[in-house]
Amino acid sequence: MTTTDHGTIPDAEPLAAATDLATALRELIELSVVTTVAPAEVRAVAELVRGASERLAVARRPVSQLPALGGRAFDPVGGEASALALPLVMRREDDGVVGEATLGVAYEGPPTYVHGGVSALLMDSVLANAAVAAGVWGMTAHLELDYRGPLPIGQALVFRARVAETSGRKSQIVGTIALASAPDQVLVEARGLFIKPRQEKVDTYFDGITDASGERPSQSRASDATAVPEEG
Amino acid sequence: MTTTDHGTIPDAEPLAAATDLATALRELIELSVVTTVAPAEVRAVAELVRGASERLAVARRPVSQLPALGGRAFDPVGGEASALALPLVMRREDDGVVGEATLGVAYEGPPTYVHGGVSALLMDSVLANAAVAAGVWGMTAHLELDYRGPLPIGQALVFRARVAETSGRKSQIVGTIALASAPDQVLVEARGLFIKPRQEKVDTYFDGITDASGERPSQSRASDATAVPEEG
Repeated sequence: MTTTDHGTIPDAEPLAAATDLATALRELIELSVVTTVAPAEVRAVAELVRGASERLAVARRPVSQLPALGGRAFDPVGGEASALALPLVMRREDDGVVGEATLGVAYEGPPTYVHGGVSALLMDSVLANAAVAAGVWGMTAHLELDYRGPLPIGQALVFRARVAETSGRKSQIVGTIALASAPDQVLVEARGLFIKPRQEKVDTYFDGITDASGERPSQSRASDATAVPEEG
Repeated sequence: MTTTDHGTIPDAEPLAAATDLATALRELIELSVVTTVAPAEVRAVAELVRGASERLAVARRPVSQLPALGGRAFDPVGGEASALALPLVMRREDDGVVGEATLGVAYEGPPTYVHGGVSALLMDSVLANAAVAAGVWGMTAHLELDYRGPLPIGQALVFRARVAETSGRKSQIVGTIALASAPDQVLVEARGLFIKPRQEKVDTYFDGITDASGERPSQSRASDATAVPEEG
């Protein structure tokens, strides 16, 4: 099992290898939409990809079993080991979180602009990051976005969020997306209500989940994935 | 250039080949998060993927050049040739659109459940589909979601949307996600405001875009990608 600080050599390699694969896959996904090579060559690459799948398919975990990597390595927005993720890495700044990313053509909606739903996908994660940074973890109950201008593909974007209000198990989080070159002109504005589920709901939702070895997780292990910090 | 009905053999193969690659990539992406093979094997697969990228990288279009496939083949939600897409294919039913999809572990947020942002990504597309089906295309101006219950990974989900109101260039669209096995119990509810931009804005947004041959697109070609049906 990987330690949470990834500090020991035997534990660091699975995450490093998975990250290596995700990084390679991200590039291949982007190339798959911008390549202009002949269809026969595209088909040959598809065959190569199927061969790669066969090698990974020989051993796999069931959906209910947590990955050995721990944490959020496979998160589809921020996970360094997720091929779907940019990844969008957030850091703390002032009273919230901030991160930068440049989106490729694979994330395109209208020609040369980011898909509107991708902005929503990213902002849900950005708001959740602000919640976690403030120690007020919850699940998304409401998400709302205003689109003031389109986000160009291939230009650095800056994502921000902060907790606006916390009351009991509920937190209101606000966030924005802007061009890194014009950070004060907000292009997308988001508001989210995150609610920390009651413990009995957490127990129901995550009943039957096992750790990486297939065992029922200990309390500390469960919180590694379902991450419910105590209310303060 | 691919004809819109993909009816002729010389034009059908680029889309078929790109779809073949996207299908293979989807499987590899899912396996990359569920595999439990040794890190050395994961690294070997990453090397294989980099080799695949090299083959596609020899010829590529710039961001501003539309793909030769036409249409929405690379759309990150519904595009059959997008590795990021499920793909989520919608069909007309009653006064709206409906589609089914089962999400893999690659789309996971909390353990065994779909990432909240992924629901938002999908619903933006589902609402847009309802708009297009009703002939009221627009760009997302506002998107709002209520999450009533988590969506399980690996279970068939049903997505619905319909235009609730249209007034001039603005359309209010509503939609839902439910389990296919319990279609009347809404788990995610979405509302969107889609606005058809004024022609001068369309011209500004999509200025500089070229068709697949690198030429400025004709009016009919532009509408293939930016798809602005006439009002009325």
